[in-house]
Amino acid sequence: MGALRLPALTSIFTSSSSVRSSPAIFPLKRRLRLPLRRPFSAQSTTEKVVAPELGDGKGKVVDKEKDRVITPRSQDFNAWYLDVIANAELADYGPVRGTMVIRPYGYAIWEAIQEYMNVKFKETGHSNMYFPQFIPYSFIEKEASHVEGFSPELALVTVGGGKELEEKLVVRPTSETIVNHMFTQWIHSYRDLPLMINQWANVTRWEMRTKPFIRTLEFLWQEGHTAHATAEEAEEEAMQMIDVYTKFAYEQAAIPVIAGRKSRVETFAGASTTYTIEAMMGDRKALQAGTSHNLGQNFSRAFGTQFTDENGQRQHVWQTSWAISTRFVGGIIMTHGDDAGLLLPPRLAPVQVVIVPIWKKDNEKAGVLTASSSVKETLQAAGIKVKIDDSDQRTPGWKFNYYEMKGVPLRIEIGPRDVSSGTLVISRRDVPGKQGKVFGISMESSTLVAYVKDKLNEVQSSLLERATTFRDSNIVDVSSYDELKEAIAQGKWARGPWSAGDEEESKVKEETGATIRCFPFEQPEGPKKCLMTGNSADEVAIFAKSY
Amino acid sequence: MGALRLPALTSIFTSSSSVRSSPAIFPLKRRLRLPLRRPFSAQSTTEKVVAPELGDGKGKVVDKEKDRVITPRSQDFNAWYLDVIANAELADYGPVRGTMVIRPYGYAIWEAIQEYMNVKFKETGHSNMYFPQFIPYSFIEKEASHVEGFSPELALVTVGGGKELEEKLVVRPTSETIVNHMFTQWIHSYRDLPLMINQWANVTRWEMRTKPFIRTLEFLWQEGHTAHATAEEAEEEAMQMIDVYTKFAYEQAAIPVIAGRKSRVETFAGASTTYTIEAMMGDRKALQAGTSHNLGQNFSRAFGTQFTDENGQRQHVWQTSWAISTRFVGGIIMTHGDDAGLLLPPRLAPVQVVIVPIWKKDNEKAGVLTASSSVKETLQAAGIKVKIDDSDQRTPGWKFNYYEMKGVPLRIEIGPRDVSSGTLVISRRDVPGKQGKVFGISMESSTLVAYVKDKLNEVQSSLLERATTFRDSNIVDVSSYDELKEAIAQGKWARGPWSAGDEEESKVKEETGATIRCFPFEQPEGPKKCLMTGNSADEVAIFAKSY
Repeated sequence: MGALRLPALTSIFTSSSSVRSSPAIFPLKRRLRLPLRRPFSAQSTTEKVVAPELGDGKGKVVDKEKDRVITPRSQDFNAWYLDVIANAELADYGPVRGTMVIRPYGYAIWEAIQEYMNVKFKETGHSNMYFPQFIPYSFIEKEASHVEGFSPELALVTVGGGKELEEKLVVRPTSETIVNHMFTQWIHSYRDLPLMINQWANVTRWEMRTKPFIRTLEFLWQEGHTAHATAEEAEEEAMQMIDVYTKFAYEQAAIPVIAGRKSRVETFAGASTTYTIEAMMGDRKALQAGTSHNLGQNFSRAFGTQFTDENGQRQHVWQTSWAISTRFVGGIIMTHGDDAGLLLPPRLAPVQVVIVPIWKKDNEKAGVLTASSSVKETLQAAGIKVKIDDSDQRTPGWKFNYYEMKGVPLRIEIGPRDVSSGTLVISRRDVPGKQGKVFGISMESSTLVAYVKDKLNEVQSSLLERATTFRDSNIVDVSSYDELKEAIAQGKWARGPWSAGDEEESKVKEETGATIRCFPFEQPEGPKKCLMTGNSADEVAIFAKSY
Repeated sequence: MGALRLPALTSIFTSSSSVRSSPAIFPLKRRLRLPLRRPFSAQSTTEKVVAPELGDGKGKVVDKEKDRVITPRSQDFNAWYLDVIANAELADYGPVRGTMVIRPYGYAIWEAIQEYMNVKFKETGHSNMYFPQFIPYSFIEKEASHVEGFSPELALVTVGGGKELEEKLVVRPTSETIVNHMFTQWIHSYRDLPLMINQWANVTRWEMRTKPFIRTLEFLWQEGHTAHATAEEAEEEAMQMIDVYTKFAYEQAAIPVIAGRKSRVETFAGASTTYTIEAMMGDRKALQAGTSHNLGQNFSRAFGTQFTDENGQRQHVWQTSWAISTRFVGGIIMTHGDDAGLLLPPRLAPVQVVIVPIWKKDNEKAGVLTASSSVKETLQAAGIKVKIDDSDQRTPGWKFNYYEMKGVPLRIEIGPRDVSSGTLVISRRDVPGKQGKVFGISMESSTLVAYVKDKLNEVQSSLLERATTFRDSNIVDVSSYDELKEAIAQGKWARGPWSAGDEEESKVKEETGATIRCFPFEQPEGPKKCLMTGNSADEVAIFAKSY
């Protein structure tokens, strides 16, 4: 938790002073009683100050726009990130250090990811199932590099039903060991292969430095596990799944990840090869956003997972595993968000369009609300995720800011003049001010639906384009270690030929803080010389600081 | 695990003797090496004996119909249940005592439940979210009856990241405590209410006597949690959700549950009132299949979950929680299954229709397969879950038995004569033999789709009707304790007026093994006298032995 700071407290003190004399001051008091390390709660946007003196005696809500101050992204990226998560109500801290509560708006983004992935996994021949989360400790010890990688991060159950357990249980950090234990019982002949499954589950890793979504003690993920008769099939599967992740990142999340192979040092504990997608965040740090492992026969040898081949010979199966997690939500925030808050790619946004009805006089209200509801129904019927905010307790201006902060891709405004002309106004979240605003769009159903769908696609492409430009302008081709050091010092990614050993790789990490993110699949043609040793090199590697 | 026996081993020995001389005998050997307490694995239907002497040199699969012997339901209900789970590949045991691996076919039933429920939860105003599974031990102790109910069943994490923890962590058995901890931070005024959320999660209860799906150390469930401003709203919500469960049971699972209120003794630890749906299994034991709790202010008082009401007064919120779990899958098996195996209600069946193409001569094959594929596509396009089994390694007879055992509601057979007449044969899983078989159904798309949908609906209603008749013929109205004892001794449910105290209730349990399952919502009119005391009684209660 050392990385967390408290962006909210100052602004609370400042902004709340205007209502301090209010008789209904409790939200402020509540805040002051909160533990100091809880910035999410401290800045909750659901808090409303009741100021009865202004209203109808029943209490009326006062706008507290200033209360929702988000630290500018350029000023302090980490503070900005935490502010966005708190203000957009994506997550909150759990009571146990390093744990996270995923709030409905954040969870809805995860559900959108699940929905897409579930279809892709089934299309590629996988079935969902569920393995127990408690793993006998002895299982973890069976695969040598696996235990080395995971044992420092384990949570152990030692007491069950009031009694000390004979064998302590590991709360799954990942499921390769228990999967292999079961596969060994299910796989007998080549006819049982390939065996291709996936599970959606929670996993636990006892991380010391945590950050919401990016690294938490417990997180949600999917883990695919497959077993094949040949090395080639396993390799094909591992590549297929990193490809599924890559397409998802580009087409749904609008994140131009770079897909490639991990260096030996960075390979998953227990894998032969790890493929990865690496995303550049707004602060230019890399985020490992998904991995697919070719496990070779490492686990099948450790667990005796064998099959009888077509010639009657016993063979160990070849395996893969692959995962993406709630970390991806953090990647979306840090790729697209800006000073105004969250900015969601339309294809993953829980709300794609928000309608804000605008009226001043009471006799305008009914017409505006009727038109707004009818527009909502039209869009909803066309499969667009639309929300209408017709509350009269907030001003339109407040609502504009609020839904911008929530990252809703499109806003529709409908006022009395729009109603009489049968038109409306559409604003793009990704293009601020007048430039992103179009007046006079027809309310006629087919015109409107086509227009909104077009605009959503435009926002989607534009986010990807912007992120790609940003990424490309921050990758430097380097041909020497000095150039690499300079690029990293400037906060950029360095791409250069690499054929040096593990020791040189560690040296780079020690001296620059950067690691090899991957050997990208897309490689430049022609002869190359290792930036470190000058020896000939087959590939370029990408170096960067990372989360 | 004491309740589990080994129905499979005898039949393995018997049935496998016919292939014992085969050179490819390993599946048998494997079985013998399996630990004795693993009947699921021991009887896996995916095992195939390779008998190269019969085939093309590549090995050909020999039918082992006798291998899939399911203990007759009437002979030993528990053995039958475990056989069905093993043979239909619904689940397997995990390596840790009392844990369960949910296999793809079983998980698909759970996914069908989730799909339906998720829609209903959202329609009734709930949002999904996720709370951490690790709960500080001190939280559990805050609500007196909650700790009493749950402390004997807790799994505790005492070591994290290689260090003994200062405060041991509870692996959630249910989330009321952590939910209230967070609600206390999110709820400030009446405007924040109602707060209505749900989570899909795994939970852990250290049960001593386990049974797949019905009672396992870890299980999957959804838990809804809501907070309201008034007692009336909380009561309305608790009733609304038991109603959602009841409708689900009747309309989707074809289980005619009896909904009602739990006695004080049987109320959830920490609730003011528990509503329940009670289902009668095939052995006439009751299964508590879902519960909805009115928590009153018990947890809000323990956790200080307060709001400021419209008059500026601080009040404790009124709460509910409600859950159904993977136990429901067990309920489906034990309600509808028969000697042939599983029998799934069409609305929850992962495969609603299986197509078995039948041919004898090679020149018939192409025509039959083409017609089968086209029927498959027609049905699929109409939203029917259909599978085609065109493997030539099994006989049609083997396939008939296999998909009957898997509980697929409808089977379509297509042979060469059907192809030439443009018709097919449909068999109902729930009506055995010729009676359930209709010949000469037209393959013409619209006729076929309408016919299949009709038939699926027929199976669905017929399952509900059959279960209702069974239930009603096994509930006895009693007016004295002697009558109650007699009914219970006959294995039936007893329904009778009850106004006696907790002690008398305990006495019934001790002497008969039966408990009050519920005071059903549907009550007979007129004056009643308590079957135990003779005092006047307001309600009848239902007594039964239960899982």
